[in-house]
Amino acid sequence: MDAWFGIDIGGTSVKTALVDSQGTILVQQSFDTGDNRGENFIAVRIAQVLSELKDKLTKNGQDNLEVRGAGVGIPGFLDLDTGMVAEAVNLGWVNVPFQRMLEDQIGIPVSMENDANLAALGEAFAGAGAGHRVVLCATVGTGIGGGIVVDGVLHRGVNGMAGEIGHLVVQREGGVPCNCGHNGCLETLASATAIVRTAREQQAKGKLPQDTPIIEAKDVFDLADSGHATARQVIADAAEWLGYGLSLAAITLNPDVIVIGGGVSKANERFLVPMQRAFERYSLSRVSEVAHVRAATLSNDAGVIGAARLAQQQALA
Amino acid sequence: MDAWFGIDIGGTSVKTALVDSQGTILVQQSFDTGDNRGENFIAVRIAQVLSELKDKLTKNGQDNLEVRGAGVGIPGFLDLDTGMVAEAVNLGWVNVPFQRMLEDQIGIPVSMENDANLAALGEAFAGAGAGHRVVLCATVGTGIGGGIVVDGVLHRGVNGMAGEIGHLVVQREGGVPCNCGHNGCLETLASATAIVRTAREQQAKGKLPQDTPIIEAKDVFDLADSGHATARQVIADAAEWLGYGLSLAAITLNPDVIVIGGGVSKANERFLVPMQRAFERYSLSRVSEVAHVRAATLSNDAGVIGAARLAQQQALA
Repeated sequence: MDAWFGIDIGGTSVKTALVDSQGTILVQQSFDTGDNRGENFIAVRIAQVLSELKDKLTKNGQDNLEVRGAGVGIPGFLDLDTGMVAEAVNLGWVNVPFQRMLEDQIGIPVSMENDANLAALGEAFAGAGAGHRVVLCATVGTGIGGGIVVDGVLHRGVNGMAGEIGHLVVQREGGVPCNCGHNGCLETLASATAIVRTAREQQAKGKLPQDTPIIEAKDVFDLADSGHATARQVIADAAEWLGYGLSLAAITLNPDVIVIGGGVSKANERFLVPMQRAFERYSLSRVSEVAHVRAATLSNDAGVIGAARLAQQQALA
Repeated sequence: MDAWFGIDIGGTSVKTALVDSQGTILVQQSFDTGDNRGENFIAVRIAQVLSELKDKLTKNGQDNLEVRGAGVGIPGFLDLDTGMVAEAVNLGWVNVPFQRMLEDQIGIPVSMENDANLAALGEAFAGAGAGHRVVLCATVGTGIGGGIVVDGVLHRGVNGMAGEIGHLVVQREGGVPCNCGHNGCLETLASATAIVRTAREQQAKGKLPQDTPIIEAKDVFDLADSGHATARQVIADAAEWLGYGLSLAAITLNPDVIVIGGGVSKANERFLVPMQRAFERYSLSRVSEVAHVRAATLSNDAGVIGAARLAQQQALA
């Protein structure tokens, strides 16, 4: 049976899995990078994990497996023509020929892509986007990442930036600075980080209890659940901005599904419902009436499943 | 030699052409619809024009031509699965089975698409977008239409609405009403109509000469050229909004070329230069540095060339 090796490199850990051709994870394993984020360490460690994963399957009696290729998601800017990681800030990599390095270690073809794009490909192939033709994914976490899949194939744009909806400048005036250098980007208004920042501002003004630490978005959702109107407003505002931002992307793309991943997507009614209302309010009705908004279903596995799918597509291309 | 019959139906006239497989027009002809915009009249008249076009070519000694298929651009909402024109407001058509009607008249396969999408396909195939991978087209006229072509193929979205960037709600608060039912759409701020409306408002306030009739956008450009600061500001504001709207579409799509068509695109330096500055100011640098902004080159022929290209692609599919 054919299997595909999916790898999802993050700032603090590397997730890996062997995945079958239908997108089902056969076996998986993660390791922490800790402070050791060097490309050599990671490539060597990935090769060790691959043989550990194969051993596990053999012990389970699945020894008829051929791992035909690997896909790897990297949080950064890639040059696919040369197989170089141009820059991966969280890993401290600049101009790393990681595709070749990893192929040397594991002895099978390696395909690279940025991590947000592969999460989108995973959800489109085997998650909330399965069966849809034009899939727009948004992952709302520390920032807001995105990806687009059309007829099963990633639309990466000319240099991999397609779907970077976190950097839509939705607040043209008076917005707060974003890491990207602009002010008023969607992720400064609707990410988990933005929810925490806004709630803390309200807390400093005495509009939220001083004795409740606000560390993560969940703390704000909990305050909202216990009836704090200001916390509810903070969440409603973030949901409004996300719905607005999605309307801009959807009018451009005309998707049949919008998949929302990341922590806030689990806060279903409190966030997704007002978000969808805003999305419909700002969209052409012919666009919003065909665009189903769904919570992601693959959670942290979207990246490795998407990476495995990319490997499969490259092998069959 | 293979030829393709391109048809571009508008509210007041129908443009047609026989086009070769490279996108060169061999012969062309238009007719006015006047008040007679019925689907039967137009289908019969198109069939007459087709035989007139063939006769012209024969007289020119080009009698070795086989017209293998037709493409037709329609200003409205289409259902491609059934070949129905769901609604074409300017033609007064509702649920018209125009694909079958036209095939009955001309005896060759007919492909339909909306007119803005076909203009984009034409520019991508044989105009300012030729040789580019991800083409975003915006036609700035009475409204603002748009279309997207990826790897030579139209990205129409799930129901043909992709690239409708005229209806990006760019002014979330205080915008003027748009035909679509929303307020603050890009076309209420950056179309030729918007330039005329804004200039007239300034004229009513005495900020532009009372004795100069402002009928079309060109009148405002002329006032700007003769040194009127208010006219220049009106144009600069429209250019700023268009650049901003294009940044939203470009961050979603990551194109390598943005083709601007319609009347304002001919006002090159006065409009396209400030538009491009705004586009760069609101875009991620990795997006704007690869997205070349170009004026359209096919002018009114983009639609028929795109229609012929669609026919060719359908025949080869």
